[in-house]
Amino acid sequence: MPLAVELVAVGTELLLGQLTDTNTVFIAQQCADAGIDVLGTHTVGDNRTRIANTLRSALERVDGVITTGGLGPTIDDLTKEAVCDALGIDTQLDEASLRQMQEFFAKIGREMRENNRKQAEVPRGSFVLENPRGTAPGFVAFGPSGKFIASMPGVPREMKPMLTGLLIPFLCERYGVQNAIFTRVLHTINIGESEVDHRIADLFRAGENPKIAVLAHEGLCDVKIMAKAASREGAEAMIAPLQRTIEERLDGFIFGADEVTIESAIAELLRSQGATISVAESCTGGRIASALTRLSGSSETFLGGVVAYDNSVKVAELGVSEETLARFGAVSEQTAREMAEGIRARIHTAYGMSTTGIAGPTGGSDEKPVGLVWFGIADPERTTARSFTFSGDRDTVQRRATVMALGLLWRELRTPINERLM
Amino acid sequence: MPLAVELVAVGTELLLGQLTDTNTVFIAQQCADAGIDVLGTHTVGDNRTRIANTLRSALERVDGVITTGGLGPTIDDLTKEAVCDALGIDTQLDEASLRQMQEFFAKIGREMRENNRKQAEVPRGSFVLENPRGTAPGFVAFGPSGKFIASMPGVPREMKPMLTGLLIPFLCERYGVQNAIFTRVLHTINIGESEVDHRIADLFRAGENPKIAVLAHEGLCDVKIMAKAASREGAEAMIAPLQRTIEERLDGFIFGADEVTIESAIAELLRSQGATISVAESCTGGRIASALTRLSGSSETFLGGVVAYDNSVKVAELGVSEETLARFGAVSEQTAREMAEGIRARIHTAYGMSTTGIAGPTGGSDEKPVGLVWFGIADPERTTARSFTFSGDRDTVQRRATVMALGLLWRELRTPINERLM
Repeated sequence: MPLAVELVAVGTELLLGQLTDTNTVFIAQQCADAGIDVLGTHTVGDNRTRIANTLRSALERVDGVITTGGLGPTIDDLTKEAVCDALGIDTQLDEASLRQMQEFFAKIGREMRENNRKQAEVPRGSFVLENPRGTAPGFVAFGPSGKFIASMPGVPREMKPMLTGLLIPFLCERYGVQNAIFTRVLHTINIGESEVDHRIADLFRAGENPKIAVLAHEGLCDVKIMAKAASREGAEAMIAPLQRTIEERLDGFIFGADEVTIESAIAELLRSQGATISVAESCTGGRIASALTRLSGSSETFLGGVVAYDNSVKVAELGVSEETLARFGAVSEQTAREMAEGIRARIHTAYGMSTTGIAGPTGGSDEKPVGLVWFGIADPERTTARSFTFSGDRDTVQRRATVMALGLLWRELRTPINERLM
Repeated sequence: MPLAVELVAVGTELLLGQLTDTNTVFIAQQCADAGIDVLGTHTVGDNRTRIANTLRSALERVDGVITTGGLGPTIDDLTKEAVCDALGIDTQLDEASLRQMQEFFAKIGREMRENNRKQAEVPRGSFVLENPRGTAPGFVAFGPSGKFIASMPGVPREMKPMLTGLLIPFLCERYGVQNAIFTRVLHTINIGESEVDHRIADLFRAGENPKIAVLAHEGLCDVKIMAKAASREGAEAMIAPLQRTIEERLDGFIFGADEVTIESAIAELLRSQGATISVAESCTGGRIASALTRLSGSSETFLGGVVAYDNSVKVAELGVSEETLARFGAVSEQTAREMAEGIRARIHTAYGMSTTGIAGPTGGSDEKPVGLVWFGIADPERTTARSFTFSGDRDTVQRRATVMALGLLWRELRTPINERLM
């Protein structure tokens, strides 16, 4: 049975253009994947009457509405009241949410105020969507006609798991949405979007089901294969041969599929070798260490790092020689090598990785432009170094250099030790 | 005279979540700056009836509608037809647009097709918005009631100059819009949204102009004051007294206004004292160093850091004593103190900051739960340490601990040295 919905984002700040609404595109995507049709989206300010009118008129057109925002504790948060107005119902206290909220405040050692208590109320008869990451629960409220309004908080970190883990499964089961869409995402690193596109362009044209999309983000490039079928098994069978072809075309750039991240791929390779790593960062300023510690259990493979921003730290903490710095400069192949070797020896790890570069916007020269970054990797057998020049502002250079470092590290780790050549 | 509009973005791809709509936020922002009130926004698919219905119902609520998208040459582009349906008018050929289009195609050396010719037609009686960057002109069409629908292409590169250069000036002149909107944002740290709300709730209720909004994001909480007036000076004069009151109520938590970030506030305090800082991070894994190096020129005040993930690194690189680790554990006040003192001595900086905690999801105990983080600050006179327990998943704990560290550091730096007590 098809299910048609409209989306409503609540918040005056969205209408003033002060905040970009990233929730709507995420929800639209997840609904499309689940086989739920989104027929329209709306944004409305923190005004009870206008929110209620928007909800009422949407319910005339579709089976249900999904809202985000306006569930907070302040006087400006009016979504719940407007939902009740639109459906002609009142609220009731949800004991479980109240308890969870009390525990939340006890844990963070802050007093719970009366305006927080209001957040534990939901429209009468609602299905409650728990919110372990915040204070406001979401809910699915039902009107006399059997149509629904589902409301979630506007904070993306709270909304996303609520949508994918609770709301979409609930709607699919209750309304019997059966179009199984199965998606396989292949993650590549250190290859540009246009090169990916060039290598698989003919597969794009092959058809709509299965369908391919290329999504570039943050220096990584994902290839998404989507298939629609009556069952998950059917969809998987449609994807498999296409996936194999893409894997062949992009050999050496795909570090994993679906839930795998570049950090988890690196940790897995290190674990399988029983190896450890340390990092010495200059221009990336701690971003590689942050990435490598993002995963639980990372302390098994990542022991530590030094952010050697000042040259004195490169010398004292990493053993880079004063002569190297004077002769070749801080941003040089030689310094990158000595940093990688220095951190490896210092922290006693199997691998040492280094970065040194010019993030900008100042500090560049003709010979060493802004965006130039040297990367070093010291392994048990040898040390290699390579440079790249990245374009963009300071933050972009730092982000791209971090992704490049992770990509170089991943490629090094998956290559048998006697074939390595970074 | 106030002018109220709604925005309508047209395109099925937007409803499938395949494309992020960046136009709406841009238009909303430009309208706010020009004093045009945006009361709602909508997205609708490439369906003539649904577009026309959306336009009709918007015109019942506001003075005009601004649409983007659906003006292209393909069979899917139906905005112009829907505008005519909604206003009950037909189209006419715009000779100037046809000529411009012919020149455009001659210039790029491509044949002009019949479906391009259709693009030179506009609703009868429209004010034409020229499009030197593309083929489709925009237009402002008028209904019998004097209400308008302005339509622009969806390509941002074509839409943006059309909006700011042609449409907004046209609307402001024709409808006599005179309001200037001025905004002041006060940034707070280490205070919760509900506490901020509690302290200034009465000011919220004071009125609509100037108006206050509270926005929480990433552990920071912004208070935004907006004023509408005939001139910028007038708006600023309305904001000033309210700003002073809020600053008093939130004393000790506001680190800056408008463009100031917590990183820039810290760097500025360090610079004014001629002081430097280094950081020793365990559970935050390099995130504090990343934050402190985000700014250009940060090498003046931030010299370096150590990510001491493994205990052996805490001992060897930071001089934490084996006895401290054995007796109190890695996550303890004593270890936090020794880490802060160790990094300060090691890197030779005025200040040393440390974090050590349990980011989770594993590694917690009754005595030391997941989320417990100790923070240490060593300054030239003394060392202090404090602990907090954060809720949330691993990433959330790491992010919140990083923001807390920056907040503690900022507060330490702004307190005269003889009054310090972290």
